[in-house]
Amino acid sequence: MRLLHQHPEGFDPAIPWTQESESVRQDSRIFRQIVAQRRSPHTGRQHAFYRLEGPDWVNVVAFTRTGELLVVEQFRHGIDASTLEIPGGGCDEGEAPEGAARRELREETGYTSGQWVALGSCTPNPATQSNRCHTFLALDCELEGGLQLDPAEELQVWACAWAEWETRMRRGEIHHALVLTAFQLLSLWDGWPGLLQKLEA
Amino acid sequence: MRLLHQHPEGFDPAIPWTQESESVRQDSRIFRQIVAQRRSPHTGRQHAFYRLEGPDWVNVVAFTRTGELLVVEQFRHGIDASTLEIPGGGCDEGEAPEGAARRELREETGYTSGQWVALGSCTPNPATQSNRCHTFLALDCELEGGLQLDPAEELQVWACAWAEWETRMRRGEIHHALVLTAFQLLSLWDGWPGLLQKLEA
Repeated sequence: MRLLHQHPEGFDPAIPWTQESESVRQDSRIFRQIVAQRRSPHTGRQHAFYRLEGPDWVNVVAFTRTGELLVVEQFRHGIDASTLEIPGGGCDEGEAPEGAARRELREETGYTSGQWVALGSCTPNPATQSNRCHTFLALDCELEGGLQLDPAEELQVWACAWAEWETRMRRGEIHHALVLTAFQLLSLWDGWPGLLQKLEA
Repeated sequence: MRLLHQHPEGFDPAIPWTQESESVRQDSRIFRQIVAQRRSPHTGRQHAFYRLEGPDWVNVVAFTRTGELLVVEQFRHGIDASTLEIPGGGCDEGEAPEGAARRELREETGYTSGQWVALGSCTPNPATQSNRCHTFLALDCELEGGLQLDPAEELQVWACAWAEWETRMRRGEIHHALVLTAFQLLSLWDGWPGLLQKLEA
């Protein structure tokens, strides 16, 4: 990479701001909100930064033995509409991301897999959230039993051919950023060209 | 798509929950937090849902005339570390997404473009946020002047060859979900195979 601009002069992104103070603004079911007063190492100016802390998240690109993608459709209260997504959720306390991914796949779809690949992780919003979302690929999934949902979870599960899923992404019908990120991570995976060939066969 | 499971029986994702009440919990610089009490149309049960309301966001995949990607590096207070991102930000009140994208590109990189493509939009988190992030492609960008930053914005701007950017994505060095989503939207765009050929030439 070639440096074009720097502001302020001598800016070094590796030097953190000085923390002057921080306090918990709010504790909810999903997030703890922190407000931190911080001073810039470059300008000496102080600013308040809001940060949401919560558990890491996981999601799973899961294909059945016949190469269909497992899709979860549910009503989302942030946008007041239903969405087509892949299975996922939050890590329980002390739970490793792969364990959470196996659990979420089983709970939300009834399927399990013996073949797991870690595709990487993202920061859902590094400006305002501290957590990461870990994405996994589960291959040759098989139905093990019924759904195991929380009281507020209402959803339906679909099996979708790859070509149809790609068309739906192109049309903007799949718009959840963490779902689109999962497919970007999948496309960067070494094994993707081979898997794609099988899905298109 | 082929329906596999439904919970509860007769679940229809198009039927919204009944709103019993809602109130503003908090108003910050970035978001307004709402808590809504809602009743399920399927089970009759009531639950509280938290929602963050704020302006729509935009980001820009911007290539210079010589085919280099414009990259913004800055310290992010959510994760306490610096990130490599593409230019972007929030729409001002009454500002259309493309206008915001042109403004953010100019302010954060000093570059402008005469060739814009709307690549689509995502929902950053449809479970807890109401807003969308709109992604644009800007081609043949040219330097117009210096940076125009807010008092708390400190950053540096890089020009990055496509092959290097792809390597950095593969290595997990690019991890902001909205940035990875932007490149997923780019790869779904009709014109991408042709543009990629030019970038790799």
